[in-house]
Amino acid sequence: MELVFREAKRDDLQRVVELIADDAVAARRTGSYGEPHVRAFEAIAASPDNELVVAEAEGVVIGVMQLTFIPGISRNGAARLLVEAVRVSRELRGQGIGRLLMEHAHERGRERGCALAQLTSDKQRPEAHRFYRNLGYEQSHEGFKLPL
Amino acid sequence: MELVFREAKRDDLQRVVELIADDAVAARRTGSYGEPHVRAFEAIAASPDNELVVAEAEGVVIGVMQLTFIPGISRNGAARLLVEAVRVSRELRGQGIGRLLMEHAHERGRERGCALAQLTSDKQRPEAHRFYRNLGYEQSHEGFKLPL
Repeated sequence: MELVFREAKRDDLQRVVELIADDAVAARRTGSYGEPHVRAFEAIAASPDNELVVAEAEGVVIGVMQLTFIPGISRNGAARLLVEAVRVSRELRGQGIGRLLMEHAHERGRERGCALAQLTSDKQRPEAHRFYRNLGYEQSHEGFKLPL
Repeated sequence: MELVFREAKRDDLQRVVELIADDAVAARRTGSYGEPHVRAFEAIAASPDNELVVAEAEGVVIGVMQLTFIPGISRNGAARLLVEAVRVSRELRGQGIGRLLMEHAHERGRERGCALAQLTSDKQRPEAHRFYRNLGYEQSHEGFKLPL
């Protein structure tokens, strides 16, 4: 199976929302495809620091992730790559596609001059934590969220 | 003591780097003030999605934080506020300045349409974790980092 990584197009958005929502932890909070997702897609497309990336196999979108490139003063002025909303189509999980997605994320980060990748993962996802540790990530931080 | 919150200016940068570095966990990795910090400052200033904010009291910069506004598809298309590099001058810690900084962060997040604030804190900082929980943050995620 050949995988193509590319930026998501407007026509991919409904599929992207379905992928993000097809998840025990995120289902409730993602919502079903609608106007708020369209506005968010447009904001991502307009931002020079954000990319919504899809993985496509034989013309079908089977994975997604969002990349944010963030300049920063800490760590000797290192720019960071933030990875969010990583998903692989349910029926294709466990076949290494997530690893390829993440390798693509890291490549994009390096191309954009980032010296560090960072992400958070819900404490309810122990398999995801193992996945990131296996990719070399250090599980060094606590992650906090607050509704505004 | 009256506090003023404002975006950092180029002239604040050396002080900002000193504040970020004056910390047991971050000292080694921040580096001493130099060209990489200047480049990072310029990248932050040029980005519409990033703000380096300082707290000033009687003309002296006594606190800093970086805000990043991030559009996203998850959570029903909610934009997020990411808070990084929160520091208060060592001799003024424990007086509520950090709380005022964070309240300003949340206000800026709401002004920019963010529905969620998020941050990570090194597992070596239990007092910081208590501080964020006291502000209402849920300690719901594991945080991962990988050098690129």
